[in-house]
This record gives sequence, C-alpha cells and structure tokens, in this order.
Amino acid sequence: MPTKVSRSAEFLASSMTSSTAETPDPDAFLEKRLASSSYRVEEVPLEELPDWRVDDRLSHRSGRFFAVEGLSIRTDFGSTPQWCQPIIVQPEIGILGIIVKRINGVHHFLMQAKMEPGNSELVQWAATVQATPSNYQRVHGGRSTPYLEYFQEHAGRRMVFDQLLSEHASWYLHKRNRNMIVELPETEDIPLSDDFAWLTLGQLRQQLKRGKRVNMNARTVLSGISYAGEGAPDFFGDIADPFHLQVVESHRVGRSEADVSAALTWLIDQKSRFSLDARRISLNDLDEWVRGAYGIRHREDRYFRIVGLSVTATSREVDRWSQPMLEPTSGNVVALVCQRRSGVLHFLVQALAQPGLQDRLELAATVQWNPGNYRGPDDFPPLAEYLDAPASWTCLKAVQSEDGGRFLRADTTHLVVDVPEGHPVAAPDNYRWMPMGTLNRLIRSGYYVNVELRSLLSCLL
Amino acid sequence: MPTKVSRSAEFLASSMTSSTAETPDPDAFLEKRLASSSYRVEEVPLEELPDWRVDDRLSHRSGRFFAVEGLSIRTDFGSTPQWCQPIIVQPEIGILGIIVKRINGVHHFLMQAKMEPGNSELVQWAATVQATPSNYQRVHGGRSTPYLEYFQEHAGRRMVFDQLLSEHASWYLHKRNRNMIVELPETEDIPLSDDFAWLTLGQLRQQLKRGKRVNMNARTVLSGISYAGEGAPDFFGDIADPFHLQVVESHRVGRSEADVSAALTWLIDQKSRFSLDARRISLNDLDEWVRGAYGIRHREDRYFRIVGLSVTATSREVDRWSQPMLEPTSGNVVALVCQRRSGVLHFLVQALAQPGLQDRLELAATVQWNPGNYRGPDDFPPLAEYLDAPASWTCLKAVQSEDGGRFLRADTTHLVVDVPEGHPVAAPDNYRWMPMGTLNRLIRSGYYVNVELRSLLSCLL
Repeated sequence: MPTKVSRSAEFLASSMTSSTAETPDPDAFLEKRLASSSYRVEEVPLEELPDWRVDDRLSHRSGRFFAVEGLSIRTDFGSTPQWCQPIIVQPEIGILGIIVKRINGVHHFLMQAKMEPGNSELVQWAATVQATPSNYQRVHGGRSTPYLEYFQEHAGRRMVFDQLLSEHASWYLHKRNRNMIVELPETEDIPLSDDFAWLTLGQLRQQLKRGKRVNMNARTVLSGISYAGEGAPDFFGDIADPFHLQVVESHRVGRSEADVSAALTWLIDQKSRFSLDARRISLNDLDEWVRGAYGIRHREDRYFRIVGLSVTATSREVDRWSQPMLEPTSGNVVALVCQRRSGVLHFLVQALAQPGLQDRLELAATVQWNPGNYRGPDDFPPLAEYLDAPASWTCLKAVQSEDGGRFLRADTTHLVVDVPEGHPVAAPDNYRWMPMGTLNRLIRSGYYVNVELRSLLSCLL
Repeated sequence: MPTKVSRSAEFLASSMTSSTAETPDPDAFLEKRLASSSYRVEEVPLEELPDWRVDDRLSHRSGRFFAVEGLSIRTDFGSTPQWCQPIIVQPEIGILGIIVKRINGVHHFLMQAKMEPGNSELVQWAATVQATPSNYQRVHGGRSTPYLEYFQEHAGRRMVFDQLLSEHASWYLHKRNRNMIVELPETEDIPLSDDFAWLTLGQLRQQLKRGKRVNMNARTVLSGISYAGEGAPDFFGDIADPFHLQVVESHRVGRSEADVSAALTWLIDQKSRFSLDARRISLNDLDEWVRGAYGIRHREDRYFRIVGLSVTATSREVDRWSQPMLEPTSGNVVALVCQRRSGVLHFLVQALAQPGLQDRLELAATVQWNPGNYRGPDDFPPLAEYLDAPASWTCLKAVQSEDGGRFLRADTTHLVVDVPEGHPVAAPDNYRWMPMGTLNRLIRSGYYVNVELRSLLSCLL
C-alpha cells in the first residue's frame, strides 16, 4: 500500500476504481430510493402558492428562501444591447459539501440520493450536504440536515476544496454557493444515513457519462478536483481510455503562478472591454413579460417561465411544500471544443457576460446555447457550427439536469468535441485556449469559471 | 553587482535607497509643479454644473464618467440594520498603473506629479497612469493620457502586478480599478514627460510617512508590492529601523497555499454569517437626505455631502471643468493594530461589510473610523480604544488624501499601533491576526482587502 502519495494521485486512483466492497451498484441504489418514496409534482398558479405573494416581487412570507424580481440590463456584450427579465434573488450562501474518506486504500465520496422536484429524473446523486441557511435553520419547520456539522464546524478538518462559486447567472442575480470538499481521517467513523452511500470517483464518472444521474450541485463541487498537484505520480500508463489520459495530462499543465496570472490578465482585459449595467426593478415594469394563469412568461414564450409547483414527497425534510420554479425553454446545450495543441489537450473557453454575475463576466464553455435566446441563424453565437461536429469528434454527449430545486425540466445537453490536431479553429478575441491545469486553478480561485462550464468539466473527470 | 536576484529583493533594495542620480528631490519637485500651474477650485450648486443633470440620479449628459444614485441597504452587520444613502456609480474599469525600471542597478518607479481638485494638498505623487475609459477615450475632448500604451498594449510586457481591486465601498457602488505594475527592461528607453519623475521606493516610503504626498491611487497600486517571494535573500541585516525589519520579515510569513486557503475559509465563514442587501433607488426616495443650494446632504449633516465643484487648471487634460464631488465629514481615521506574535509581526484585521462591495465584505483595518457614522460612545466600533494608544506604541501617524478626483477634502489619518508582545488584545469573532505575507497574497488575489486597509499597508512598505 502506498504510504506517502498525494491526494491528487489518490483521486486519480479512485477515478479508476469501478467498485469496492463499500459501494453499492449506483443505478440500483438510485432506483431503490426512487421506489421507496412516492412523489407527486404538479403545476399550480403562482397566486395559489401558500406562503408566497406576488406584488412588485414574488417572495416568501418569511422573507427567506428566495424571491423573483425584475432586472433591467444594458450591455455592449453580444447582440442585444438592452432588455428586462425576471431573475431569482437569493442572497443567502448555501453549502454544497462532499465528505471524502480513504477506505481500504481508496478514496470514497459520500453521496446522497436526493429527490428534486424539477428534475426530469427525480432522484439523482447529490453532494453530502446541499442546503441553504433557510433550509438548515429550518424556516420550513422540517427535519435537520444530516452531516451539516462536518462543514459548519470545520476547525481542524482537512479542507480539500472551499470556495464561493457563482451559479446560473442568466437566472440568478449574484447567486453563489460555498463549494466544499472535506476529508475525514481513515480512522474516523461516520454513520451512514438512509439515502447515503459511498461511491468511488470511477463510479461517479460513469454516472456522469450516462447523464441525469449526478445533480448540478454535486457537479460543481466535483469540478474543484484536481488530478495534479504536489507529488502527483506518473502512473498514467494505467489509463486505458486515450482521451481520459489526455485530460489527466492536461491537468498538470498551466498551473504555475505565471500561467494563472497570464490567464487572469487576459480575463481582466475582457472585463475592461465590455460594459454591463444591471438594475433591480419591479416585476410590474417588465415590458415584454406577461403574468397570467400559467405564471410569468415572455410574451413570445422565449427564455423561460416562472411557474408554481406543488410537491408531495416522503423523503425530504418536509412532506409537502409549494414553491415557484423557473422553467427554461428546452434545447439548452453547452459545448466545449478541445484540441491537442503542442502535445497537450487545450479547451477553447470564452469570456461571457451574464446579467447575474457579480463581476460582469466569467469563463464559459465554447458554446452556451439557449435556443430561446436566439431569433434565428443570423443571431447564432460564434462557433455554433461545432454543435453539429462529426460523431467521430464527439468525446462526450450527456444530458444533465440543472438544480431541480429551482429549475423545472431544465435539461442541458453537455457536449465535448475533440477537434483533430492541426484543424484550424477560428474564434473571436474573447475566446482563449487553456489547458485543464489553468482552468482547475481558476475554479479554485473563485468567481472566474461559470457554473455551466464547471458542470461540463466535472464530466471530464 | 548581483546577477540573479529576485524582483522582491530588488524592491527591498530600492526601499532602502534614499536617492539616486536619476531622482529629483521629491518635495522640491512637487512644489515646483504646484508653482508652475495655477488652480482655482470653487464650490458651485449642483444645478449650475454644465453637462450634469439632476433627476432621479445625478449624471453626465454623455452618460459617461460617473453618476450619483440612491442606495437602500439592509444588513445584519453592525448596529444599523437599514438605511438609505447616495452612492457614486462608476461601472467603468479605470487603469491605475505604475511603470518600474531598473536603472543603474536600482528599481525606480515612474511617478506623476498630479493635481486633483479635491485634495487639501493639491499636487501629489500619482501612478504613471491613472485614467478611466471616459478620460482616455477623451469624452471631455481633452489631451491624451501619457504612457497609456504601456498598460493597454501589454503583450510581451513583464507584469509585476495586475489585479482588479475594490474602492471606497461606503461611497462607491461596486467600483473597482485595474491596479498594474509593469516592468520595463533596463535596455528600453522611455521618454520622461513633464510632471513625471523616477523615484525609488525609499523616496516613496518617506513621502508616504510625511502624508498628503502620495495619492490614493498610487497607494493602492503600491500595496501590491511584496518583499518576499521566490529567491528573496537574507540581507535584512541592512535594515536599520527595527519596526521596518519586522514588517519585512512578516512579508515572508503566511504565504503558502495552505495559509492563504485557511485565511479564505475564515473569510468565507464571515461572509456566510452576515447578510447585506443593497438596492439602487431614486435619489428622490432618500428619506433622510435633503437637496438644497449646498448640494445633497444628510438632514443631520452626517456621513457626507454631494457638492458641485468648478475647477480651473493649466496642467490637466482640460483647462476648466465642473463635476460633482463627495465631501465626507471630517475626522476619518483608519488604524491597524499589530503585535509580534510567536516571533512574527501580525496585523489585526476585520471582515467588514460595506454597502458598495461586490461580495458583501472584505478585510479591513482594525478600526475604520468615520465619526459622522457614529451617534455616540455607545455606538463606537470595537477596538476604538486603540485610537488613543500611548505614543510609544504608535509606529505611523500620517494623514493621507483619498481620491481627490471624486472626494473633496477627504483626509484620513492613518495610524499603526504596535502593541507590546504579550499584551492581551480582545477582539470579536470577525477579527483575525494575519502576517503581512498572507495579507499581500490576498491583495494580489482580488477582492479580499479593502482600499482603506491597502492604503495603510502601503505606508508600511
């Protein structure tokens, strides 16, 4: 057994472990949990949501949870200089935390089979803890949050990852959550509650590839994992999949201070080029949006709707609740173009402005495609042609769910396109090739990589 | 002459150099520049400012430069849960950049003697470039900005420091500027324009100690300088001043990834504890503020006033202009308590919420004291007693000007109090001791250290 191996190397070893004595069959576990509870999810008019009221904003009577307000945006980024939209305002900082522990020499991740009413596959793998203060302070009067103490009382704990990161900035205003990975000592016992199971990173990889099995909150936390770092060894020969081998090698490139500084200088250049002014306004002042029996919708049914949802469940903190949800138009795609350049796999990312970002723009996937946002072929985003790349270039195609606690039927196709070495790729100035090592360091540095790109990168673990 | 010495060591050597053949007498230079131009600065009613209009906001007819709007704040940080105030909105990202160059073996800083109408000492040392896009795109039709190209077209340049950093978040909403230090090769010639001079860091140190000689924008850029880093040598024996020696040694402590991560985890804990909701509103909806012949003021004359200023000058881009200014109530102090702990100088900083910060709170000095904000002794901030510390504990006391391009007569006393080793200091949970190495790395990482603390730290260089 290795005695002094780095955590990065251990994570890589875990990613190549497809099962252990500690782990259940992940699919069977999810199916069993789904079968063991009953759920009913039903759309209701916003006016009929108990405890919620609509006036100049849509808010909970407690003043907690979240609200839907209006936002007026002016920007010189992209083709639309000015618009208004509803946006979710949720100033609380939630905890998304995963416990990891080395068991019999292999790192295991403590995952929760969690029902979220908005997901098209209702029960998926979630982080160990996924909770806002409104949840864990039990504003709804429900059950307590298991394992919360490992993240709240973390003094002396081994923190593998701890960072505030942004979330869907087209739908949320300045939303961020605390992404945490806490490692327990091998000798520390921890009880395994119902709905929880240990999985290896290899099992999570497989679940991520299948799609709709690992929820958004777990994906953003997992994106903080690095396969490089001090003392990472060279046992890459064990990696059978040549694309995975390239990804792992790319983790080790571009991690120096100089590399990260150069990437940040480029990102600051982009922030300086574009302006974005976002102002909170009354829901009543959204000219192009209408309120009716079916919630709040764009008058041409574009972008998304705000609807009411009534949920009955037997496996959540409370058995019955109602809440507003945001339902995007369907067909969303995030696509990442990659290419071997100078012998190392690089990823083509863009600096993308989004109205809810705290600092104007962050790094995004090559294409972040929301059909409801575009009026026609003349209005397509750059590099949209790679959405139709040949099947032989496609390394990953999986449909993933966005946060099913806020978003209804929000499925996003995740696409990774590996363009052959030497094939020319033309991109505007706000696009840049980066190796995985740089992207991972930027994720770990805070508000630099948006959640859509982090979600994609987690699928490449 | 050393051949392979790190830049940190070279900066330290420069800080111990009090003059060279390249440098003027700094005081004489400022006096000469002041005498060579004539300035007239005069208060005028806001309504009489040409090109500015007051309605629900105070703005320039071009839509550029900046605006004054209303802000409504709710927070559970501090003793005031809710208030409204005017705030300056300036979404543009300005450049604050200093050129450095090794001349005859010593690093020199290219500084500009710059007049700013709000400063009580009109002409002070500024960064090489201090300009917003509205300035350098010449919205006012004025002269071009010298040396701008060294910062805008920086490809291939040696970037010593490049970061977006926040500014006075009680007066500005989400304001940030790009702080840059660019190093030229020894062999690259650069013309020396009027009003510009090379200074050593030692000269800047002396000017900083005297007060009102180095402007706010230069101070924030200088705060990015580190005396530690790869290959920094041990010639600290040359440092005669024992307190300076302790500061330099403290630069080398707390710089590891683990140290910075632990500090950030603590800061995220603080961000999670407190809430802050800031909403832009109309100037007309500020209940406690009145508009009159003397601008916009609080009805009890607290906090600050917004006034009009008419300026006539012969050394600026344009010879005559008018603009609104923010004039704070007088008596502002920032004080930093430090103490030798386990043999290393540590600084007691607090996580402080301010309404204009992008992410709720940043690190601030031990005491950030604005008498106009407090109603009486019961309302004093924690640790205010150190403002009256014995003279023998006081390592620095200098009055510095805030940005005289926006703030009128905004003088802040900068105080550093060195508490004897072992003397107990009691502080609330949102305070933490940090060595200079950690603080410097946090400055270099972005929005973690507020401008008031950065200004203080620059005085300790």
